[in-house]
Amino acid sequence: MLRVAIVGATGIVGQQFAVALAGHPWFQVTQLAASERSAGRPYGEALRDPRTGSLRWYCAEPLPESLRDLPVVTVEHLDRAHLDLVFTAVESDEARALEPALAETLPVVSTASAFRYEPDVPLLIPGVNNDHVRLLEVQRRNRGWRGFIVPIPNCTTTGLAITLRPLLDRFGLQRVLMTSLQALSGAGRSPGVIALDILDNVIPYIVGEEEKVERETRKILGQYRDGAIQPADFLVSCTCTRVNVLDGHTEAVFAQTVRPCPPEAVARAMRDYAGVLAEAGLPSAPPEMIVVRDDPFRPQPRLDRDTHNGMATVVGRIRADTALENGVKYVLVSHNTKMGAARGAVLVAELLVKSGYLG
Amino acid sequence: MLRVAIVGATGIVGQQFAVALAGHPWFQVTQLAASERSAGRPYGEALRDPRTGSLRWYCAEPLPESLRDLPVVTVEHLDRAHLDLVFTAVESDEARALEPALAETLPVVSTASAFRYEPDVPLLIPGVNNDHVRLLEVQRRNRGWRGFIVPIPNCTTTGLAITLRPLLDRFGLQRVLMTSLQALSGAGRSPGVIALDILDNVIPYIVGEEEKVERETRKILGQYRDGAIQPADFLVSCTCTRVNVLDGHTEAVFAQTVRPCPPEAVARAMRDYAGVLAEAGLPSAPPEMIVVRDDPFRPQPRLDRDTHNGMATVVGRIRADTALENGVKYVLVSHNTKMGAARGAVLVAELLVKSGYLG
Amino acid sequence: MLRVAIVGATGIVGQQFAVALAGHPWFQVTQLAASERSAGRPYGEALRDPRTGSLRWYCAEPLPESLRDLPVVTVEHLDRAHLDLVFTAVESDEARALEPALAETLPVVSTASAFRYEPDVPLLIPGVNNDHVRLLEVQRRNRGWRGFIVPIPNCTTTGLAITLRPLLDRFGLQRVLMTSLQALSGAGRSPGVIALDILDNVIPYIVGEEEKVERETRKILGQYRDGAIQPADFLVSCTCTRVNVLDGHTEAVFAQTVRPCPPEAVARAMRDYAGVLAEAGLPSAPPEMIVVRDDPFRPQPRLDRDTHNGMATVVGRIRADTALENGVKYVLVSHNTKMGAARGAVLVAELLVKSGYLG
Amino acid sequence: MLRVAIVGATGIVGQQFAVALAGHPWFQVTQLAASERSAGRPYGEALRDPRTGSLRWYCAEPLPESLRDLPVVTVEHLDRAHLDLVFTAVESDEARALEPALAETLPVVSTASAFRYEPDVPLLIPGVNNDHVRLLEVQRRNRGWRGFIVPIPNCTTTGLAITLRPLLDRFGLQRVLMTSLQALSGAGRSPGVIALDILDNVIPYIVGEEEKVERETRKILGQYRDGAIQPADFLVSCTCTRVNVLDGHTEAVFAQTVRPCPPEAVARAMRDYAGVLAEAGLPSAPPEMIVVRDDPFRPQPRLDRDTHNGMATVVGRIRADTALENGVKYVLVSHNTKMGAARGAVLVAELLVKSGYLG
Repeated sequence: MLRVAIVGATGIVGQQFAVALAGHPWFQVTQLAASERSAGRPYGEALRDPRTGSLRWYCAEPLPESLRDLPVVTVEHLDRAHLDLVFTAVESDEARALEPALAETLPVVSTASAFRYEPDVPLLIPGVNNDHVRLLEVQRRNRGWRGFIVPIPNCTTTGLAITLRPLLDRFGLQRVLMTSLQALSGAGRSPGVIALDILDNVIPYIVGEEEKVERETRKILGQYRDGAIQPADFLVSCTCTRVNVLDGHTEAVFAQTVRPCPPEAVARAMRDYAGVLAEAGLPSAPPEMIVVRDDPFRPQPRLDRDTHNGMATVVGRIRADTALENGVKYVLVSHNTKMGAARGAVLVAELLVKSGYLG
Repeated sequence: MLRVAIVGATGIVGQQFAVALAGHPWFQVTQLAASERSAGRPYGEALRDPRTGSLRWYCAEPLPESLRDLPVVTVEHLDRAHLDLVFTAVESDEARALEPALAETLPVVSTASAFRYEPDVPLLIPGVNNDHVRLLEVQRRNRGWRGFIVPIPNCTTTGLAITLRPLLDRFGLQRVLMTSLQALSGAGRSPGVIALDILDNVIPYIVGEEEKVERETRKILGQYRDGAIQPADFLVSCTCTRVNVLDGHTEAVFAQTVRPCPPEAVARAMRDYAGVLAEAGLPSAPPEMIVVRDDPFRPQPRLDRDTHNGMATVVGRIRADTALENGVKYVLVSHNTKMGAARGAVLVAELLVKSGYLG
Repeated sequence: MLRVAIVGATGIVGQQFAVALAGHPWFQVTQLAASERSAGRPYGEALRDPRTGSLRWYCAEPLPESLRDLPVVTVEHLDRAHLDLVFTAVESDEARALEPALAETLPVVSTASAFRYEPDVPLLIPGVNNDHVRLLEVQRRNRGWRGFIVPIPNCTTTGLAITLRPLLDRFGLQRVLMTSLQALSGAGRSPGVIALDILDNVIPYIVGEEEKVERETRKILGQYRDGAIQPADFLVSCTCTRVNVLDGHTEAVFAQTVRPCPPEAVARAMRDYAGVLAEAGLPSAPPEMIVVRDDPFRPQPRLDRDTHNGMATVVGRIRADTALENGVKYVLVSHNTKMGAARGAVLVAELLVKSGYLG
Repeated sequence: MLRVAIVGATGIVGQQFAVALAGHPWFQVTQLAASERSAGRPYGEALRDPRTGSLRWYCAEPLPESLRDLPVVTVEHLDRAHLDLVFTAVESDEARALEPALAETLPVVSTASAFRYEPDVPLLIPGVNNDHVRLLEVQRRNRGWRGFIVPIPNCTTTGLAITLRPLLDRFGLQRVLMTSLQALSGAGRSPGVIALDILDNVIPYIVGEEEKVERETRKILGQYRDGAIQPADFLVSCTCTRVNVLDGHTEAVFAQTVRPCPPEAVARAMRDYAGVLAEAGLPSAPPEMIVVRDDPFRPQPRLDRDTHNGMATVVGRIRADTALENGVKYVLVSHNTKMGAARGAVLVAELLVKSGYLG
């Protein structure tokens, strides 16, 4: 068993890590870090609202019993000598200082965006760009670290990049235009989206989101060559909106390919690709990365987000585009707090183990 | 005053006509038609649920007092000799038989899609394609009618066509890709969208909607020439979804123009165009057809749908597109049951008066 | 294994029965009945929308594979000779004719209200009034049936009756005033609650619901004596409302007891009672019938409805009432489509087996 | 015209005051106070989000043009010599220090709870307890103030107290049990209710709310005698919950009266009472304080909250209670941010003018 710490353990993403790692066959959470305010208390106590006594636990799954009494420390007090891996679940500002300090000695898998765009930092999605892992050698060399930082992509990028992988491979890609209808949980709870703002409403702007998706998609689908990643050379444009949905980002994608892409061929390409991780032996990997549905009323976030434990991207409405040459359009749903966050990060860590970078 | 009948008066769109025409300076509702079931009763009684006694009135505005005691008849019993105009608010299947019969002697302005795609039927949006009204002469000649049929476009088309008008005029258009986030009221109440299906959810498919928008947009923005309308020659592709919003369709638009279209120039084109109807003397015309907002968090359907009494299209987030050459993207909100339905139809009727086709 | 039929199998409650019985250790679904329209097709086909091809399956759990190919017949064509039990999931009107015909030869456990108020029909909730089962002997004698009818209570009654059981036993009850905030799924899908009516809204009336709850609660908590049930002699008054929640009825209860009932004693009484079914060996029985939560922000329908697989009633906010002598008030959440419908009916059938009335 | 200041002008309640006072025939807003952060800027600028430039204006009505350029000052810098009245819209903690300082020289009408329970402070609702205004003389004498403080009740108390007034007068009251289903806007925006917490959910607890309603209702309906208010001697008990509704508190009331109260008599008593303010000449007074609806599906918050400009309490479902002797039950809807907040406070100020305490 590898010994694992969660940094930012009391936040909502930290809690999702706690759940994603409960009973994991390879990883055992042995240390928890959070802010000064929580430090010094057992995890179960640190989660309590001091005013009302309510447990501020935000996952549908229960608080893992094995963590209830684990003491929370500040990140400075982590016992690094007894750790094999750190998952960080903190805001980007905080990550910028904290993650390099950890990476000096330890592997860090992060949900923060702080290092995503650095040239020597891979943005891994297992099954999509496993070979980018080799960039870690460059990273270590550049920075003189014994550990490394691997961030996961923005939760809106993940489903898009996964579904574009088989399109790129089979048809080539020229341009991608995407409109997202994103879930509330993507905004967190501090304070996240206020109910007064979203009831009977849509919010057409999520600060910084579109730039992230546009940039990350091309990096993820780029080519590792000579110690660097060459971004994929298709164009990406997004409009990101917020809708009144708890979990599960919906994305309406229009794609122009290089070669003709009749809808049946697109569906077949996605289905052929879907099993890419099935044999990889990664405990969190879904049996199908993509599930293609023929029912035109699917995918729907409430009905499809939990497919394969929230780790599959569900696609539907594949049809020819009427405005792009070699065009196809489709709708996808991806679980933003499972494959798009903590569980996705755990899957990345599993790939690192398999690739020999961990353990 | 022109004497007006509402056909389908007890339905939700019929009620919206009742409200839109209350106190109208040019039109007076003198007759009401509905199904066999309602016929023979005063309007106020015909709206009552026989089982519970509840008034099935679905507008926020009150039932106009002047209509409460007006008797409801079947369409066959309308007194055509004392009518100058009929507004029809029925399903398309019903419209297909009913509207031609009425049009033999009377002008018909319709919210149904039945005749929208006939070559001799104009799809009018005042301020957008006023000259298409001349097609009515062809229609009358072709069909031997004293009256005519003018349908209004699908409610999702309306806001799109209005905002594309200034783009087409100033920059030329090559292609348009649009994803809609449509309100519940667009689906009506028979039964419309069931709450169980949309709470915490998005429905990614609206039967027939995308084809309508793609076809209507090009017809509306086409050119009237030699007794026919030449569809505009740009390409249109849509994905239409339903979200948990009462009223107000939100649309995320990506457009590729012929000539460069920097965002400021697009905003200026829209603002320059906005006043097109301000001087036309049409009572229902908004002072601005388009309201461009600089706040990146706007437009939002709940906050913007009622702008200028629901008759304006509100646009925001105008920015350069990163995937299309000469590309621009923006978000619009248009009130689907006001400008997009009954009030929009009344505005069309007002244009018909001004153009000499009515009264 | 007892051989079981589901009548009304294609409806939403019928589907919930299919899920509740999947893999059941005692009951095996061997026959399915539905309307003429569905008859003659395998279950998986009968559920398909003929127009769009969508599977009209409304449970979060998947359609049990073992039922996919089971043919659907009309109720007249059930092979009664090879059945041990029938679960009926039909509207009350239909049940009134159909259930007696079945009960001539077969035990019937029903979610319909048709026979709930007959003097010789028990309203069973396992753990609450097991001894009422003896009324079945009277019912059989009265009606000359080899089988019998056991309806389950209205879904709003269930949680109330369960939580009142320990109050009645320990403190005596004088009066109960309850306001419900009921979930959408209680209204079904034909058409159920329209989204336009409940978004940003509360509906303060559910036809017939209050009378049902008031009457059923007293019957359930009444005493079986001399072949009849003497309703409990406390008073019950309800106001039943609908709120925008998918599943899980919330009820705010005010109760006046005979003897003093300090909140801690009430909590203790409920906790002492909770394990009543834990040892009964009924496969669907929850380990705790009632879960009392100390967190004042609980119970919440979304967070608590699935406690113990939807079979527990979750109680919170137990506090002294300030307007009733010997008063207590609390809030409960009960899963209306699990304990309050199909799963609750399966639990009743399990009790019938244990009591020797079945199998 | 009386010269008026709004303290807390940039907050949501302060904005509602700005709207409620726009174009008021008696009151003119001449000064605005807010926190240090906003001071020194024109109102229109102080409302802008410094990061995104968005206008943080939360009312459906537009920002009154006449206030856009009015400078915002801190409360210490108000020019008291040129004011006749102050409306305060601040949190209770802040009000505790701030309001007495203002009241030394100026009349203060407040939405804060800080002074509601002081024996020499009246809780006025025009039409309900106008004579309590005489307590202001005691207050001034006690405290040596030239001004005074008049708080308005909690928004949940208002509708309850208004509907109980005619019941108390005509039938006497013994006890009242009420369950509220409160709107989101009652929780404000700092951060108010997070969408993740209320979507598909009910929150069964609002800190401190029940105690406020129980206490305030009895004070409001108490008797002014010998310089003090004797609380009404009936009992009140509440359970206050939050539901996913923007505006408009719904309350399910059970009341036990002293004398028999058949539902028709209750409806008549409310209707007879409704016009109490119609002749009073108060500009904000609704023509009917209570609107009784016969439709059993009403009142509904979305449909009824804006009745008489949000100043009426809408009542329905009046029926005999089945658990209380001389019992009646009904449902009410009251607009929590109009009659229950700023507009209600303006109405109180109007009563103060009419009573000679102001101007």
